[in-house]
Amino acid sequence: MKRSYTMQLFYTSDIDGSSATFSRDESGHCLRVLRMRMGDEINFTDGRGNLYEGVINGDNPNMMKVSVIRVTEEYGKRDYRLHAAVSPLKNTDRLEWFIEKAVEMGIDEITPLICSRTEKNRIRRERLEGLIMSAMKQSVKAFLPVLNEPVMIKDFVQKDHAGIKIVAHCNPLPERKPITQVVERGRDTVIMIGPEGDFTPEEVMMAVEAGFLPVHLGNSRLRTETAGVTACCSVYLANI
Amino acid sequence: MKRSYTMQLFYTSDIDGSSATFSRDESGHCLRVLRMRMGDEINFTDGRGNLYEGVINGDNPNMMKVSVIRVTEEYGKRDYRLHAAVSPLKNTDRLEWFIEKAVEMGIDEITPLICSRTEKNRIRRERLEGLIMSAMKQSVKAFLPVLNEPVMIKDFVQKDHAGIKIVAHCNPLPERKPITQVVERGRDTVIMIGPEGDFTPEEVMMAVEAGFLPVHLGNSRLRTETAGVTACCSVYLANI
Repeated sequence: MKRSYTMQLFYTSDIDGSSATFSRDESGHCLRVLRMRMGDEINFTDGRGNLYEGVINGDNPNMMKVSVIRVTEEYGKRDYRLHAAVSPLKNTDRLEWFIEKAVEMGIDEITPLICSRTEKNRIRRERLEGLIMSAMKQSVKAFLPVLNEPVMIKDFVQKDHAGIKIVAHCNPLPERKPITQVVERGRDTVIMIGPEGDFTPEEVMMAVEAGFLPVHLGNSRLRTETAGVTACCSVYLANI
Repeated sequence: MKRSYTMQLFYTSDIDGSSATFSRDESGHCLRVLRMRMGDEINFTDGRGNLYEGVINGDNPNMMKVSVIRVTEEYGKRDYRLHAAVSPLKNTDRLEWFIEKAVEMGIDEITPLICSRTEKNRIRRERLEGLIMSAMKQSVKAFLPVLNEPVMIKDFVQKDHAGIKIVAHCNPLPERKPITQVVERGRDTVIMIGPEGDFTPEEVMMAVEAGFLPVHLGNSRLRTETAGVTACCSVYLANI
């Protein structure tokens, strides 16, 4: 698999044996925008870890058909899972930006976390899923990250999460370690990032009692989305 | 100095003894938008490391006057300097986003780096400086990062840079270490980040010959601005 900087990755979940069918959007992008034709080779993924090479053998721009010539399973599979639970933000651009960057660096699961200081309890699911898809393709990944439904913090901390559990907060109490001392190479990690104005002390205690380790992200006062990227980046960098 | 999450920081370079005068923008924001009044206390910085507390004693919304009651010198001074040289991007939003995040995490100097694959040789200086100022205030820093004029890469690598010099590139040659093995706590660091499409092999060699260490940022294919943030984040995290 040639993996050039400009490689275009397409997506479809509709693969039947060695024949793949593409959505109107993907078909139009490939045939109309990129002007590819019958016989041209493309790369695509099913978002479940498979990276395919195939040849266009049906050029209906509403429903492109491709025959599979090669498949790589578990393409780019990491030996850790990263799950970030982040409070939605008033400014939706900022949440979207966080999600795009987290997908580029590599994340498996994103949960919008509803805290007592969260000012916005809804997300634009369709838009965020489009953005996750597009960042996955842009950064040539074969696993599509999962966007969960928004969850109340009290329910989130009680879930059965595997691996290292982290809550990043701004108050000096309870005592926090630097995040870099808590993340570990090759370990599944769940990170909680609070809203503008931070978690309440009660929320932090609830997380700590459920086994989340309190951490700080350094002395800078970071916006929520910057805190989210910094936390994901610390896991990403521990694994490069 | 109370340093709450919601602390508002103002900026002026016009400080004469114990009297500070503010620009029309800053005065209007304080007096009209935030509705502060004579006798109210505000925090402000001169961008040269001084954090002031003062009392409003002149409420002309075009030229607010404040008398200084306390000053903290070298507020938040770090024991390292970070300088990032990044190719300007076709999509200016993405460069702006990088700059905002780099300032939040802590950066001292930003140089737009003109490489042979750079598609845009100009920057919108005034807009970027406004953004740097606003990110400095938002993240409560007292040192205003410097935005240099765009520099050709061949001139940049020849400059006399202190500390660790790093060039992040995508090609496997010359051999690269993970950036996390090269950055060091408390050391001045200069990082070069290339354009979309990367540095040319000749540019990387030129940097290496000038003493820049070749590094990679992991296996993910990162956009230029994500690479920039990841590189700055690795220095930030090494120092928390």
